[in-house]
Amino acid sequence: MKVSADVRALIERRKKGHTLEAPFYTSEEIHALDLDAIFRKTWIQVAIEPDIPEPGDYTTVEIGNDSILIVRDDDMEIRAFYNVCRHRGARLCNQEKGSLGNIVCPYHSWTYNLSGDLMFAEHMGDQFDRCKHSLKKVHVQNLAGLIFICLADEPPADFAVMREAMEPYLAPHGLKDCKIAASIDIVEKGNWKLTMENNRECYHCVANHPELTISLYEYGFGYQRSPANEEGMAAFEKTVEERTKQWEAMCLPSAEIERLADLVTGFRTQRLPLDREGESQTLDAKVASKKLLGGFERADLGGLSFWTQPNSWHHFMSDHIVTFCVLPLASGETLVRTKWLVHKDAREGIDYDADNLTAVWRATNDQDRTLVEYSQLGVASNAYEPGPYSPFTEGLVEKFCEWYIGRLADYADTPVHGVDASHGEKVVSFMR
Amino acid sequence: MKVSADVRALIERRKKGHTLEAPFYTSEEIHALDLDAIFRKTWIQVAIEPDIPEPGDYTTVEIGNDSILIVRDDDMEIRAFYNVCRHRGARLCNQEKGSLGNIVCPYHSWTYNLSGDLMFAEHMGDQFDRCKHSLKKVHVQNLAGLIFICLADEPPADFAVMREAMEPYLAPHGLKDCKIAASIDIVEKGNWKLTMENNRECYHCVANHPELTISLYEYGFGYQRSPANEEGMAAFEKTVEERTKQWEAMCLPSAEIERLADLVTGFRTQRLPLDREGESQTLDAKVASKKLLGGFERADLGGLSFWTQPNSWHHFMSDHIVTFCVLPLASGETLVRTKWLVHKDAREGIDYDADNLTAVWRATNDQDRTLVEYSQLGVASNAYEPGPYSPFTEGLVEKFCEWYIGRLADYADTPVHGVDASHGEKVVSFMR
Amino acid sequence: MKVSADVRALIERRKKGHTLEAPFYTSEEIHALDLDAIFRKTWIQVAIEPDIPEPGDYTTVEIGNDSILIVRDDDMEIRAFYNVCRHRGARLCNQEKGSLGNIVCPYHSWTYNLSGDLMFAEHMGDQFDRCKHSLKKVHVQNLAGLIFICLADEPPADFAVMREAMEPYLAPHGLKDCKIAASIDIVEKGNWKLTMENNRECYHCVANHPELTISLYEYGFGYQRSPANEEGMAAFEKTVEERTKQWEAMCLPSAEIERLADLVTGFRTQRLPLDREGESQTLDAKVASKKLLGGFERADLGGLSFWTQPNSWHHFMSDHIVTFCVLPLASGETLVRTKWLVHKDAREGIDYDADNLTAVWRATNDQDRTLVEYSQLGVASNAYEPGPYSPFTEGLVEKFCEWYIGRLADYADTPVHGVDASHGEKVVSFMR
Repeated sequence: MKVSADVRALIERRKKGHTLEAPFYTSEEIHALDLDAIFRKTWIQVAIEPDIPEPGDYTTVEIGNDSILIVRDDDMEIRAFYNVCRHRGARLCNQEKGSLGNIVCPYHSWTYNLSGDLMFAEHMGDQFDRCKHSLKKVHVQNLAGLIFICLADEPPADFAVMREAMEPYLAPHGLKDCKIAASIDIVEKGNWKLTMENNRECYHCVANHPELTISLYEYGFGYQRSPANEEGMAAFEKTVEERTKQWEAMCLPSAEIERLADLVTGFRTQRLPLDREGESQTLDAKVASKKLLGGFERADLGGLSFWTQPNSWHHFMSDHIVTFCVLPLASGETLVRTKWLVHKDAREGIDYDADNLTAVWRATNDQDRTLVEYSQLGVASNAYEPGPYSPFTEGLVEKFCEWYIGRLADYADTPVHGVDASHGEKVVSFMR
Repeated sequence: MKVSADVRALIERRKKGHTLEAPFYTSEEIHALDLDAIFRKTWIQVAIEPDIPEPGDYTTVEIGNDSILIVRDDDMEIRAFYNVCRHRGARLCNQEKGSLGNIVCPYHSWTYNLSGDLMFAEHMGDQFDRCKHSLKKVHVQNLAGLIFICLADEPPADFAVMREAMEPYLAPHGLKDCKIAASIDIVEKGNWKLTMENNRECYHCVANHPELTISLYEYGFGYQRSPANEEGMAAFEKTVEERTKQWEAMCLPSAEIERLADLVTGFRTQRLPLDREGESQTLDAKVASKKLLGGFERADLGGLSFWTQPNSWHHFMSDHIVTFCVLPLASGETLVRTKWLVHKDAREGIDYDADNLTAVWRATNDQDRTLVEYSQLGVASNAYEPGPYSPFTEGLVEKFCEWYIGRLADYADTPVHGVDASHGEKVVSFMR
Repeated sequence: MKVSADVRALIERRKKGHTLEAPFYTSEEIHALDLDAIFRKTWIQVAIEPDIPEPGDYTTVEIGNDSILIVRDDDMEIRAFYNVCRHRGARLCNQEKGSLGNIVCPYHSWTYNLSGDLMFAEHMGDQFDRCKHSLKKVHVQNLAGLIFICLADEPPADFAVMREAMEPYLAPHGLKDCKIAASIDIVEKGNWKLTMENNRECYHCVANHPELTISLYEYGFGYQRSPANEEGMAAFEKTVEERTKQWEAMCLPSAEIERLADLVTGFRTQRLPLDREGESQTLDAKVASKKLLGGFERADLGGLSFWTQPNSWHHFMSDHIVTFCVLPLASGETLVRTKWLVHKDAREGIDYDADNLTAVWRATNDQDRTLVEYSQLGVASNAYEPGPYSPFTEGLVEKFCEWYIGRLADYADTPVHGVDASHGEKVVSFMR
């Protein structure tokens, strides 16, 4: 889409270290731009292997007006297509999940195989060329069980950087051998970037998340030393150092990698200790599932956080995994999809209790939804102007904004005042 | 309204034999254009005589933001007005149906007679000229009991062509001596043209309409001979030929008339045999009402279909009539109003059972609604592109699209690549 | 905002003595203009002292996308702020009413005192200047207990004219010593100006308001003598003259002041007799509360009406007060907030019954909502064109329209054909 002069001006004059101007949260034009420049250009985390464990299993996901059909074919490959019949455009699969042998359009029974080839179309005559009417393909990547799609013709090449870095961190947790114990969609009445910004700092945790802070140290999420927190941070950093050494000795990579703003496929990870000598993000900081993941023999493996730009974060623990995927629905409406995973052999009621498993993040998600909604209401006011981020606790929110503005600037081919976010390609060559 | 360059380009480049481009189904600008160029310019079927059987009876119908008041006056004439008071613009009649002596505005009691003349307005003083404040009139036509309105100053003259052709077909069924046994409004979350396109073919019937295809031969709705259906079509055509001869001998005109795309007031009709030696469109293919229409003495009169552009279709049988009227509510929302008519002397529970009478089309409408909604979802995708119509089963959908694009081109005074739709006026002179 | 050429043309060609053209009621552009040129420029009545009787009490009110926080500080001063945190823009107070010591943001606990100064913000470091992050202030006026705000940088100076004129009328009723016995919000599906126009005439009362016209003489609300009502008006005017004399002898100013269209801060007042030797606007025309207001010793003090432009009206009686505040929600949606006030010492169930107190205006508001909604439906029709106001009963509706068009013309710096509404400032100098 064309980027208007007004929006170009907003991109160019973005003030570093400050929240974005109001139109980024409220304008329908910028919502459309976000879909086009971000959600149709970068890698988007949308599903997990346990969504489609068997051949023929499918799941659908909606990005703007596009429904994407993700299927596991008979060779166990994961494939993705636009969920649109090539005849009269009907949506092919109209459930969130299911299982199928071929993809049959409900309208006139045009039939595609699991590779997207049109196999059958009645009444079309001899002149009709089936080969020109295959389903349109979507790029897909599977990173240790996390499924990413990219709607661009040429996806960012630096997914390889993230894959190389992250597989050693994620693989030991055996996500593909998990099952989905619970899945909850909530809709937040706020722009998707407010949801992401909320996720990128823990400055708000103390006052808002009593359940989460039982096990989570806020320090691990972007805190910098300052005169005010000198003592607490020093103790925390010492603990991190010790535990990191122990975990790495167990072949569990744990050190922080922070590539949030310098890659198109931006990400961050770190394995962090949990509070109260804790094992997991639960109300008592003990494991929620007795059946540990990935053949682990110890429960005290802390919490491995994995964040991706623009739309996901995940917590990997010894006993369960929580994955979060964010999808914009409108300029002021956002879907947050949370899934709780346990070992596929864990038995509900015996090895785990779903209420206990989900208690912390059900509460935390609700609290965050409220904060996002208060923010959306406030930034829509004529009185709102960008406010300053805390240099000691909101540095990673700033990285999100930098990354975001960088993507828009690339798309619009507009210089950004003072921002140096490199293009993904350059970074990739640099990495090799 | 002004037609933008973008929309002109869409009209000009429409690809024959293919579905329309996405904006025709999703753009608010084109929705407004459809209202202006189609629904405020052509004859729209909106009601039937049994809606307003007695003097003073009225019904209201909404076309876009316009509410139209259709009344039967004391001389049994049918009249239509904009349902807007000439004082401060209040809507006059706020029910779908009712009965009245004069038309009294609820706000300040301005009072109009059934000819729309302002009879009384208090406190307006001597300078006030009542004659300049009559209700604004709307053109109305009554074709054998089907009521059409036209909001244009000068309605298409070729309504006369349709009247001359259709009266002999419709009159024997005695619609005006019917009563409404059931009426159901459904709202489809799809563009009105998807609803119409769905109606203009029976390619989708086999896979979707088990109730309808008990009595209905799909062949009768736009099928052409092809190598694939040679045998079935030949048998069907033979049956049609025989029955047409029999029916015409009974003074029931039955042969196909197809004027869908060459008239502004486009239409099509044909009386077709029903399957299983059937009598009516019911679950057992037997009559639903024992009291036959129009003095008929035989039940096996097939099904007379009558389609009008842009917004209606009707099935006339020996025992009952089903009428369908389609009205756009938004670019992605459409009202489908279905009425089931039986002889006014038929007694519910004795001569007919309303559930049995309505079973086939209640089911069929719901199935079609689902298909329309799947289509709307799909064509809104970035991946959608116009697909090819089947030359053997979707020729009449193509005629609908041709007619539609022709109307927009006339309105916008834009050439259409390769389309020759004549203006209504020319056709009328040619017919005489 | 920029005013488009189309809107300028609508402002310039407004036809005196006629209703406004349709876009004034239906266009989103004009809705945005109304918010900017009217609701963010003039004094808006939004609350009353009894909403916030104690120090620390607050109430919030929404004008367009702006939430305004109105608080009573520890010195009993009334203050108003934009309800937006200066950090990340979160809405601070998320209830309609409450009580607080400081204003603490729910997000990161930034803390402001009741003067709006930022007192505390954690993790912001030494470079951070708290003084530059106070809450943004909003102008506020308290007229005998009615609270007005103005969002403009420089509010219209002629509020002083209204204050000087109105304090002697209002003060005797002791609004600030009242309590809120009942408060009802209704949402009308119509433009706010239709709500106001409905309020500015009683031509519609006879046919629509059986409960209200028990006590209210329609004549008192803009009726002019005409041949048709000569006798009734003469009798009414005689009564008004007599009662005015009596009331003014009791130090209750009662004569009409009508400054609806010649001031920016337009208003009108008059104390009028009630019908049936009535005391109050109730179903039996008797007082609804035994505890009279302001130390009154007589109940038959008529009804003092006070109207303000653009958005309020109020009825002050001997025993209770009814206040009405109108706020636009969308081009076709309006909030009407009604509060019934009695003496703060009146005891529910003993001195007054809430059902009886509210019966007349609950019924009347519902009736008016219906009329406003019929009007919105009608004016949206293509057939609608401005109709003539009755010169004998709708003169004050015309004044509302004149005032409104004058404000838009001032804002757009556009001449208005034949309208002479002076700027507030000029009028103020003239008054002195």
